[in-house]
Amino acid sequence: MAGNSFGEVFRVTTFGESHGEGVGVVIDGCPSRISLCPEDFVKEMARRRPGRHPLDTPRREEDQVEILSGVFEGLTTGAPISLFIRNRDVASKPYEILRRLFRPGHADYTYFKKYGHFDFRGGGRSSARETATRVAAGVVAGKILESIGVKVMAYTLELGGIRAREINLELIEESPFYCPDPVASERMEEAMSRARKEGDSLGGIVEVRVTGCPAGLGEPVFDKLDADLAKAVMSVGAVKGVEIGAGFEAAALKGSENNDPITPDGFKTNLAGGILGGISNGAEIILRAAVKPVSSIGLQQDTVDRKGQPAKLKLTGRFDISAVPRIVPVLEAMVRIALADHYLRSRAVTYPPEVVA
Amino acid sequence: MAGNSFGEVFRVTTFGESHGEGVGVVIDGCPSRISLCPEDFVKEMARRRPGRHPLDTPRREEDQVEILSGVFEGLTTGAPISLFIRNRDVASKPYEILRRLFRPGHADYTYFKKYGHFDFRGGGRSSARETATRVAAGVVAGKILESIGVKVMAYTLELGGIRAREINLELIEESPFYCPDPVASERMEEAMSRARKEGDSLGGIVEVRVTGCPAGLGEPVFDKLDADLAKAVMSVGAVKGVEIGAGFEAAALKGSENNDPITPDGFKTNLAGGILGGISNGAEIILRAAVKPVSSIGLQQDTVDRKGQPAKLKLTGRFDISAVPRIVPVLEAMVRIALADHYLRSRAVTYPPEVVA
Amino acid sequence: MAGNSFGEVFRVTTFGESHGEGVGVVIDGCPSRISLCPEDFVKEMARRRPGRHPLDTPRREEDQVEILSGVFEGLTTGAPISLFIRNRDVASKPYEILRRLFRPGHADYTYFKKYGHFDFRGGGRSSARETATRVAAGVVAGKILESIGVKVMAYTLELGGIRAREINLELIEESPFYCPDPVASERMEEAMSRARKEGDSLGGIVEVRVTGCPAGLGEPVFDKLDADLAKAVMSVGAVKGVEIGAGFEAAALKGSENNDPITPDGFKTNLAGGILGGISNGAEIILRAAVKPVSSIGLQQDTVDRKGQPAKLKLTGRFDISAVPRIVPVLEAMVRIALADHYLRSRAVTYPPEVVA
Amino acid sequence: MAGNSFGEVFRVTTFGESHGEGVGVVIDGCPSRISLCPEDFVKEMARRRPGRHPLDTPRREEDQVEILSGVFEGLTTGAPISLFIRNRDVASKPYEILRRLFRPGHADYTYFKKYGHFDFRGGGRSSARETATRVAAGVVAGKILESIGVKVMAYTLELGGIRAREINLELIEESPFYCPDPVASERMEEAMSRARKEGDSLGGIVEVRVTGCPAGLGEPVFDKLDADLAKAVMSVGAVKGVEIGAGFEAAALKGSENNDPITPDGFKTNLAGGILGGISNGAEIILRAAVKPVSSIGLQQDTVDRKGQPAKLKLTGRFDISAVPRIVPVLEAMVRIALADHYLRSRAVTYPPEVVA
Repeated sequence: MAGNSFGEVFRVTTFGESHGEGVGVVIDGCPSRISLCPEDFVKEMARRRPGRHPLDTPRREEDQVEILSGVFEGLTTGAPISLFIRNRDVASKPYEILRRLFRPGHADYTYFKKYGHFDFRGGGRSSARETATRVAAGVVAGKILESIGVKVMAYTLELGGIRAREINLELIEESPFYCPDPVASERMEEAMSRARKEGDSLGGIVEVRVTGCPAGLGEPVFDKLDADLAKAVMSVGAVKGVEIGAGFEAAALKGSENNDPITPDGFKTNLAGGILGGISNGAEIILRAAVKPVSSIGLQQDTVDRKGQPAKLKLTGRFDISAVPRIVPVLEAMVRIALADHYLRSRAVTYPPEVVA
Repeated sequence: MAGNSFGEVFRVTTFGESHGEGVGVVIDGCPSRISLCPEDFVKEMARRRPGRHPLDTPRREEDQVEILSGVFEGLTTGAPISLFIRNRDVASKPYEILRRLFRPGHADYTYFKKYGHFDFRGGGRSSARETATRVAAGVVAGKILESIGVKVMAYTLELGGIRAREINLELIEESPFYCPDPVASERMEEAMSRARKEGDSLGGIVEVRVTGCPAGLGEPVFDKLDADLAKAVMSVGAVKGVEIGAGFEAAALKGSENNDPITPDGFKTNLAGGILGGISNGAEIILRAAVKPVSSIGLQQDTVDRKGQPAKLKLTGRFDISAVPRIVPVLEAMVRIALADHYLRSRAVTYPPEVVA
Repeated sequence: MAGNSFGEVFRVTTFGESHGEGVGVVIDGCPSRISLCPEDFVKEMARRRPGRHPLDTPRREEDQVEILSGVFEGLTTGAPISLFIRNRDVASKPYEILRRLFRPGHADYTYFKKYGHFDFRGGGRSSARETATRVAAGVVAGKILESIGVKVMAYTLELGGIRAREINLELIEESPFYCPDPVASERMEEAMSRARKEGDSLGGIVEVRVTGCPAGLGEPVFDKLDADLAKAVMSVGAVKGVEIGAGFEAAALKGSENNDPITPDGFKTNLAGGILGGISNGAEIILRAAVKPVSSIGLQQDTVDRKGQPAKLKLTGRFDISAVPRIVPVLEAMVRIALADHYLRSRAVTYPPEVVA
Repeated sequence: MAGNSFGEVFRVTTFGESHGEGVGVVIDGCPSRISLCPEDFVKEMARRRPGRHPLDTPRREEDQVEILSGVFEGLTTGAPISLFIRNRDVASKPYEILRRLFRPGHADYTYFKKYGHFDFRGGGRSSARETATRVAAGVVAGKILESIGVKVMAYTLELGGIRAREINLELIEESPFYCPDPVASERMEEAMSRARKEGDSLGGIVEVRVTGCPAGLGEPVFDKLDADLAKAVMSVGAVKGVEIGAGFEAAALKGSENNDPITPDGFKTNLAGGILGGISNGAEIILRAAVKPVSSIGLQQDTVDRKGQPAKLKLTGRFDISAVPRIVPVLEAMVRIALADHYLRSRAVTYPPEVVA
């Protein structure tokens, strides 16, 4: 109801603020007997962490994931798994000005309208810091998916208007922007440098691919797999659009072009992006998310104070030039969470041999 | 869990198949003392009904909405409102071939994989017929929104690759495609005629605008207003993409271009599309949905039968050339339902004067 | 949220009023490929129907269950099953006085306070008529349970202060009160006749037994099987108490008396009533519900009108002397619904072989 | 779905084990601007803590509640409130034998059947330690209730077969058993001493009273206020029965005795226990819970090991003689949580002036 949970069976509930004690997540509904230890989180947390790239925010978050519950002798028990990531390098001084002024593009204004009170230190609950818990939960979801052979991989398709032309999945981790095209990656680097000098920020597009997904995941009508993936992805702060398969391009196609013919070996094409009628069809699932440029910029902006009086705001804190590289593991995590949830859901409602007439 | 419900407070649960007794919806959580009668549904049901345009499917559905419960002496009682639309003109003969073959682009294949059994007559549960119940529920949601001055309006922005250049909201109802640009509307008509002759189908883009929405609707983190709108819209069968405000174009903008400056009179621009941090900011809410071309076409297609053997399929039933005109009131309805739900939710969790410290 | 749904996977949503079009239920989450036809409901609907006993309310409800959706060629499809029972013999004249006066013991007063408006004809939504839909949903739940060998049986343990001393399950259907003790049943008959002459009503206690339930159903902490059974049973209008196993008698026992010793052949005793730590242990599940006397009586009562002015009320409509015989199939149905739901839930969250470390 | 959450709007999700890092709770849906600090929890945590009475378990838990999120500058922000209680005095040696043997009366057997793996140290998740988080969440719920004048108070009505005859609410805190009758309290003390010498344990009955509750809380049909209170109370480990108002005694009453006459000044009697048709009627809410004797006893018991072989078990750890005194604040907390949730729910769905026809 209050919006901090996602999923029906594999249900994650996140909590915490950017400048409080830390951020955390409770996962209720993870099956028992899955191996889990703090080291499992290290790689993904590092991928999301700032500082991977020289242009990233200089804030040093170690992001150690502490397992507070749900694991015994190295295995999940079926009890809720609580993960906590303590905030360490918290400099809240630069945020004092935000006690008075709303930052354009941020949630300050709307939180104040909704709650009559808000934690202005770095956005509090609305900070991108919150996504650390999504990545942590995504690691657990990934373990469930791994057991049935499902793999989720995301990369930067576009950054600052520069688009990857070749998709070489093996080169993703070598790019500071998780870009699968080395040439585009270099040009993205230049665009980032330029934006930093200008005190400005950049947006981009991230593509997510899911392989090994069995047919039959997703529920009809409202909880279609694509509908829940759209929600999962759109719930990440900077995302302003999402599309599946051919997406917006499908609008200009004819039925004879857009329908994927079915053959004994599977679908001949994949414009549907792996989902038909809201249910996975066994083909690769493909989606793209549009990421807006970071709202915190070094340029002076027009805004108002809490009393509605006009004001000028020039932010001096540390911030990323683009959300794009760091959002890649977050979107992977959200897709993993949504898929793990739908996989477990399908076990409950898909027709069981024992009740067949 | 099984996916046929939407909303947390204003909760709609739909049921029914295209060739069964009818389709219906139960709305649980509608406040009491709202006037409601069968006539309230006539206009919106007619807008969704085929036959509005000569190129639409010739099936004549009268779509009379019967109120089975929840209304007494012309007012809602707070009890669940059940609405039922009986199927009338049901010709299921042409569908007999579908007992064996999966239609490309449709849910036949995935439903069969998921349920081991499915109602092949016109798609059964996966038919667009199901959207009639969304429109009916949207009428009730609209009454709640009306009481707080919120208006939702949708129109065809693009059809068969032809885009509306001028947006004249007053001309929408005069176009057979709900297109706000009369010149584009005529060209759309030609494209539709051409597609019909070719036995093919067309896609398009629908834009939805919400005016009068107060600031503060939407919950943070997962149940962001844009995330729930994305889910609401993506849950409609033919939709393959959704974007809010600047949407995918935001990916190529800089922060200084994309941030909407705040002034004492409101936001100077509206690239955010009326939502910041997942919560409405009081500006107009704008979203667009990409609609794929109708999957049922008159051309021969490759497919397989239930045993996986290759087959040729040429559909001869009646079907729309494009989902676009008829999907317009459906998308309006889904946005209304999502907004009414978030409005009622906000009453539960937004800070109440009586508990203020 | 608005309270008309029960269950997480096997989710029933009921609607309808005693004097409107009818009452109905949507079941979302029933697995596909279960045989279902209108005849399946006949027996249970007849068991709940008034008129089985000469002292029952003379209202003749035929209670034919119409399947509006979710079944194709005699099998469930996985789509929502909608069942509708049309109201037939509706005499609303005697209820006109209730437009002004609140009936003591009924929901009239509280509904009016909550909704500012209510359907006073026979209680509208709060009428026992609503339980017909529970019985119908229970039939579907029973089919799922049957497939795994679970049986639910209820009977009248006490009526008007007269308690069954011998429990002969085979004699239940021979008693007009579903009483397993023929001697007690005769004395109950006398008590009922006496109460009728006095214009008064009687309460009782119903016992429910579940055999064949596998160990492992129920979730820990809040959704314990006993907690959900308690809610299921207490949600039936006239129920004022519920106990599991030894129940209130356990309060006076010592641990050495109350603990059921475990043996290689199962539990030596069953004071726990088949549930340990909220999870079924494989033994028989036993619960009892206290049923208050029917609130509608023929004697004059003190009440107030809608404006709070004192008034005398003497009801002249038709009403049961006791809820007890008719509530027996209703409680069976609720226990079936709760168990079917927990069975399907357990398929989602219980540890799966494929993810074992 | 996995059972560790309770409530729809004021939603608590608990986590943690008796011998892990600690136990905690996330509260999602608490309105903003409520004052909250760690000191607010001290009193209620102390009331639940063992060691209050010489016969209680000697385990010294300090039970300091740490606020991990959701509070800023002393006020709730509307973001999820996470509370954590670190385990301190954890002696897990005596539990080693439980790696092999199931304790009669405990959840060991059923958890093992359900999860194939369980945390046997003191029951892990099924330990009464989990109730500490309920008490902490109850403190927050209490703040919401306080703002509308609702008070919840519980006491021991019966312990070891000894029943309080006089109910003097002012003496509750003076009794080590929260017994409102000093004479009965002394006899309870003797019974406790006797049981301890015998290595046995005792059960009891707790009564809960709610004053100041406005009419209109509770939803019809399934989420009746009494149904949710029954679930809330029955979800506490040792509870085996619950009754509202006259409860099981109502079964032997006549309608003329059980109906509470309505007068201009309210209800003349209160056999309904403050709830009619599942909705609060403004009168005092009264319920009672049957508490079984503690399952851990010092006497030798028959059981089996994980392989089903017979075994003898004699527990030597520390344990309470009765759950009763410590369960009193837990039941108060659960009733507070259920009421706060229904109060916030009623704000969402009760008829609003702005939509009245």
